[in-house]
Amino acid sequence: PVAATCDWLPQDDDGWSFYEEHQSRAGANGTGPGSLMDPLEDPVPGLGTYEDFNTIDWVREKSKDRDRHREVRNSRRSTAALLHSISDAFSGWLLMLLVGLMAGALAGGIDIAAHWLTDMKEGICLDGFWFSHEHCCWKSSETTFKDRDRCPQWQTWGELITGTSEGAFSYILNYLIYIVWALFFAFLAVTLVRAFAPYACGSGIPEIKTILSGFIIRGYLGKWTLITKTVTLVLAVSSGLSLGKEGPLVHVACCCANILCHLFTKYRKNEAKRREVLSAAAAVGVSVAFGAPIGGVLFSLEEVSYYFPLKTLWRSFFAALVAAFTLRSINPFGNSRLVLFYVEFHAPWHLVELVPFIFLGIFGGLWGALFIKANIAWCRIRKTTRLGRYPIVEVLAVTAVTALVAYPNSYTRMSGAELISELFNDCSLLDSSQLCGYLQVGRPDRPAGPGLFTALWQLALALLFKMLITVVTFGMKVPSGLFIPSMAVGAIAGRLLGVGMEQLAYYNHDGLIFKGWCTPEADCITPGLYAMVGAAACLGGVTRMTVSLVVIMFELTGGLEYIVPLMAAAMTSKWVADAFGREGIYEAHIRLNGYPFLEPKEEFEHSSLAVDVMRPRRSDPPLAVLTQDSMTVGGVEALVESTRYSGFPVVVSQESPRLVGFVLRRDLLISIDNARKRQDGVVGASLVVFSEHPPAQAPDGPPPLRLRGIMDLSPFTVTDHTPMDITVDIFRKLGLRQCLVTHNGRLLGIITKKDILKHMAQIANRDPDSILFN
Amino acid sequence: PVAATCDWLPQDDDGWSFYEEHQSRAGANGTGPGSLMDPLEDPVPGLGTYEDFNTIDWVREKSKDRDRHREVRNSRRSTAALLHSISDAFSGWLLMLLVGLMAGALAGGIDIAAHWLTDMKEGICLDGFWFSHEHCCWKSSETTFKDRDRCPQWQTWGELITGTSEGAFSYILNYLIYIVWALFFAFLAVTLVRAFAPYACGSGIPEIKTILSGFIIRGYLGKWTLITKTVTLVLAVSSGLSLGKEGPLVHVACCCANILCHLFTKYRKNEAKRREVLSAAAAVGVSVAFGAPIGGVLFSLEEVSYYFPLKTLWRSFFAALVAAFTLRSINPFGNSRLVLFYVEFHAPWHLVELVPFIFLGIFGGLWGALFIKANIAWCRIRKTTRLGRYPIVEVLAVTAVTALVAYPNSYTRMSGAELISELFNDCSLLDSSQLCGYLQVGRPDRPAGPGLFTALWQLALALLFKMLITVVTFGMKVPSGLFIPSMAVGAIAGRLLGVGMEQLAYYNHDGLIFKGWCTPEADCITPGLYAMVGAAACLGGVTRMTVSLVVIMFELTGGLEYIVPLMAAAMTSKWVADAFGREGIYEAHIRLNGYPFLEPKEEFEHSSLAVDVMRPRRSDPPLAVLTQDSMTVGGVEALVESTRYSGFPVVVSQESPRLVGFVLRRDLLISIDNARKRQDGVVGASLVVFSEHPPAQAPDGPPPLRLRGIMDLSPFTVTDHTPMDITVDIFRKLGLRQCLVTHNGRLLGIITKKDILKHMAQIANRDPDSILFN
Repeated sequence: PVAATCDWLPQDDDGWSFYEEHQSRAGANGTGPGSLMDPLEDPVPGLGTYEDFNTIDWVREKSKDRDRHREVRNSRRSTAALLHSISDAFSGWLLMLLVGLMAGALAGGIDIAAHWLTDMKEGICLDGFWFSHEHCCWKSSETTFKDRDRCPQWQTWGELITGTSEGAFSYILNYLIYIVWALFFAFLAVTLVRAFAPYACGSGIPEIKTILSGFIIRGYLGKWTLITKTVTLVLAVSSGLSLGKEGPLVHVACCCANILCHLFTKYRKNEAKRREVLSAAAAVGVSVAFGAPIGGVLFSLEEVSYYFPLKTLWRSFFAALVAAFTLRSINPFGNSRLVLFYVEFHAPWHLVELVPFIFLGIFGGLWGALFIKANIAWCRIRKTTRLGRYPIVEVLAVTAVTALVAYPNSYTRMSGAELISELFNDCSLLDSSQLCGYLQVGRPDRPAGPGLFTALWQLALALLFKMLITVVTFGMKVPSGLFIPSMAVGAIAGRLLGVGMEQLAYYNHDGLIFKGWCTPEADCITPGLYAMVGAAACLGGVTRMTVSLVVIMFELTGGLEYIVPLMAAAMTSKWVADAFGREGIYEAHIRLNGYPFLEPKEEFEHSSLAVDVMRPRRSDPPLAVLTQDSMTVGGVEALVESTRYSGFPVVVSQESPRLVGFVLRRDLLISIDNARKRQDGVVGASLVVFSEHPPAQAPDGPPPLRLRGIMDLSPFTVTDHTPMDITVDIFRKLGLRQCLVTHNGRLLGIITKKDILKHMAQIANRDPDSILFN
Repeated sequence: PVAATCDWLPQDDDGWSFYEEHQSRAGANGTGPGSLMDPLEDPVPGLGTYEDFNTIDWVREKSKDRDRHREVRNSRRSTAALLHSISDAFSGWLLMLLVGLMAGALAGGIDIAAHWLTDMKEGICLDGFWFSHEHCCWKSSETTFKDRDRCPQWQTWGELITGTSEGAFSYILNYLIYIVWALFFAFLAVTLVRAFAPYACGSGIPEIKTILSGFIIRGYLGKWTLITKTVTLVLAVSSGLSLGKEGPLVHVACCCANILCHLFTKYRKNEAKRREVLSAAAAVGVSVAFGAPIGGVLFSLEEVSYYFPLKTLWRSFFAALVAAFTLRSINPFGNSRLVLFYVEFHAPWHLVELVPFIFLGIFGGLWGALFIKANIAWCRIRKTTRLGRYPIVEVLAVTAVTALVAYPNSYTRMSGAELISELFNDCSLLDSSQLCGYLQVGRPDRPAGPGLFTALWQLALALLFKMLITVVTFGMKVPSGLFIPSMAVGAIAGRLLGVGMEQLAYYNHDGLIFKGWCTPEADCITPGLYAMVGAAACLGGVTRMTVSLVVIMFELTGGLEYIVPLMAAAMTSKWVADAFGREGIYEAHIRLNGYPFLEPKEEFEHSSLAVDVMRPRRSDPPLAVLTQDSMTVGGVEALVESTRYSGFPVVVSQESPRLVGFVLRRDLLISIDNARKRQDGVVGASLVVFSEHPPAQAPDGPPPLRLRGIMDLSPFTVTDHTPMDITVDIFRKLGLRQCLVTHNGRLLGIITKKDILKHMAQIANRDPDSILFN
């Protein structure tokens, strides 16, 4: 099935996959010595595992872990057992430490490599090609503080070839070589993704959300995905495309966590426990992306995770901190800061400024809603037309257009992170940027000069370009994050508004609005703050983050004062965007791909009852059920073959359909197959017995096959009159796969997660068949 | 029943109580015009409400709110209805704004008043008795920066009476007057609590946790409690007792929220929605106590709340911010800071220092565990002996001892918050405190001088005193918080260790440990940081907070660097304390009082099944059930009278006990009573019919009483084989009151929250009868 945001057909299983450990032994040809009489004591291989593209049963997984834990606790007899119990208790912390170290180191490596390759597009360091521009000029003794970016060791390609940095020829040469490099990087990225790990494309957050909610996509967090995503992320960022590395870093961190889970039995063997670690890894990803550990934890809590117990909160926080400090000790930006765009503002803001901040919030909300609609429409076109068949051509075309348009404008040529960093910063005496082209440098009152006007024009064009190109870039077959492009759009808009306000204040400081708080001598408007608020607003509009967004931004500045503007913008942005559609970009992509994701944030508001949603419907054939002691092996096999359900309820008898238990198709098939091979006398005519005491039988008949051990004795039930809002709540909170429906104690039907999602799609007038997976 | 940490017997209901709104109309003598044929459409008054000291049904409350919401949404026809729908959507935000404003203002008022009264014990301002010491000396023109605490306008009582500040007589006079004031304040506090609101005593957090988990304590968050708690909190803090105002501020904020809920129907009428607001209010309380809005939200999430949807997270954050800014604009500390103990460190810490930090963590954990055991033992003594009958004498005695011992030592005489503030701060050139009595002031290398030695002795004595007196103080019949005393203990221990390390480094800077990072010129050890880490460790040991603790501390310093020491200490402290007992102080008090609180953090680790916990036990009489269409009104009444169960399952018939629904005792009684009074012909012999279609009956018989409307058609069921860990999980996650147990579709028994708590108590070898409430 089509299974990733950027829908490659997965070509083959990549060996060290997400479920490798038990899948590799999960065939029906088990070699375990177990007798089937008590499958729980000595399990048949494959029992209790899941198929690919299926949903796990949270209740069963958590119960399994509690059993395991109980066993470890109760075996505290010898010293060895005590040590085992202690190591078991601390393995979670050790795992978190390893995840933090690995993700932090990888993020540092990605930062350094992306820097180097990005600069490679423009020129080369004569001291050694492995130096980035900045690194190259650090070593230069001739560098003054003012133009630390200019040093003789660093030469643009044009300079290197023509011998001079002036002249049209050199410029055109630079331009061409820039495009060639961009195309080369993009081609490499898309080919590597295609060849090694189709799952490495896109941001990965929609899939991780789905996986965390209990879905299984084998290989999505595997070794090959990790390697490919790391390498191609560097290439994709370096190619100058309008994409960020923040979302993919979450995917990279989750891959690290999943791979490291293999070191610990506790996590390798339990899907629920593993998802706790993955939740923490999502926090780690954001922590290294923004240098915001608290924000990362809240991001995981608010945006990504499904099951987030308090223990995970604490561990996530630990892992996020370890990762942030690992990254800082690698020091990829050379400034001992955690992030590229660390900012410090000094001027306070005034209450009147809330008006432009809220205006930025409205802009962010509108842009977010529009972006989601446009991007989804474009992805749908890609999915349904011939465009989807030529991913390499698509990537190359978009890269070519991006490079062609971006190069002449210095604000589009620089990387997204650099652009944001420049927009966030305030002009100080030392700043030589065009953005600070004021007439009177060094004084607080600053009329705009020609430099600033040029910058504004370029910024306006950059805004337009970024808004358009991001729509077609996100969803291509290369790793691509959305955080940086959205923030860039917002930051440009914010800076433009901020400079406008600043000039308004300069020329009208006695006007109605500014009177009293904006004297000519005071530095009353901070355009950098506007850029920051704009960035928050746009990011909020696209992702619908709230608390985590504000906290991430707060961690960038460190000042409690600026929380209020950020909050005002984020709230407005969310409200405005929600008015156009309640889904964020990740939920929209989840829905586009038909994943079985039960949104925990949205309330179910329809007044239907369980009986309206359950199968069989009124016109359907009756529910396929097993009886506890009156069916033969052959009969069961025939029933299983004739249906495609993944589980069957067991009832007392056809006449008295009172519920006894629930059996999974997979477990049933494996057990019968195993019994036929290994158990003497089990033939097609053998009775299948689920009850505790088998019925008396003819002495000459074949021995019965007792399968009580594989039956779930505590299936969840609701009555037919249960309102669906309560049922949905139960599914969400307990993480159910299915639930049986009864009326006065008699079994009526079954509701699966897919049924609920289909019902919800129907209510929202969407195609219920868009839900692809179970 | 005995119902508060500091167990006053509630004397009477205080009118404007927690459940005032529907309770006042909840009598059985309803006056509504409804016919009983469809009680859902036109409800009988009192149906669907709860009794005092009972647990709410979260599922029913949330379902009720969704019904209401659906109604509001679907009625969007006219402009008025649209406006109503919009105002409904924004009422939550408005409520949060009001809660933030009110709680912030109250906190500011409490701070100012407590400051003033605390200083009143020592002296008076000649410019006006309403000035506090600091405020008095602000105005003084003669104040130099160095001794801003000394000014002629401020006179101690001794100075005022004897005319001189020197001499033994003046000192003794001051001492005596100090004790008199302390006793006066304490007496006033305890008398006011007794007279007006017995619920105002203690910290309130254990009760709020229980209320948030769904329990009802009427009047606990009422108007009188708020007023009394606010006033007596000021008095209790001013009396110099070893208690803080931080915990009680959470109670105050929750009272504000509960009272403001009365303004909005949506929150007034729904217990679940109201608890969302109370969760946010808990965040507000911590936000104003520490000036840490993010920490407050995490505190509410981690420590207090039970049901905390993401929407509440965002709103809590908003309310916490509003409150923090309201408090800051009141500026109670006169320094535009949010908190009294704002700190800024400049020196980095070294990896080797983790050893003393972890040592502080161990100290904190040990102290926390010991404190909990000692305090609970003392509270048990108070409960069971005659001591409990003389609360006023107890308070006065403790106050007298505290004042007597505390006055001579300047570190115990100052308020807890001031002490912590002084211990957290680093010595700078201007600091005239004894703690900075180094020999060479102004140089980074500082051998200790005589001043510092005196300070250390005094601190050691203060530590001992605080450790002992806090045990008997917490739980007395005055408002008392634990945060400040715990932090003070830790801060003293940390400072002592910090100064010790500093001197060790000074005299051994070439020694093995310090070599390389601690040169004589460098300022390598920051004793203030040790105090901070110690404070975090002790607070963590007592409350077992983790993330929220670290974030609150982080918000005090604002530096990401110091998170690692804080985290190391908090983790160690929690592990050490957990080794002695897994309960924090709040959970211990909840258990002491027998509240029905199902701890969401602890895993249920026993392997029992639902059948082992359910009632009736094997030896008990059979379960009291109603049948759907074969019982008479008289029979039902007799059954209800003969039992004390709060609800009854309805089955098909006694012979075929298949479950139909569940009826609450309260609803049943109200309905029958109402029917007998208002419905013609309903007599004792009338059939009670719960089924959809009443059975055919004799034409001359009395008309049947149809009660399907009051029956819960979707009661929760589990099978008898369901493991208890899963059942407990269901109870916690869905917030159930009871759950029915079936076997093959037949009703077997019932499990209530109380049964689960009793079972858990039994497993832990505690008295199951200590669970008092349902």
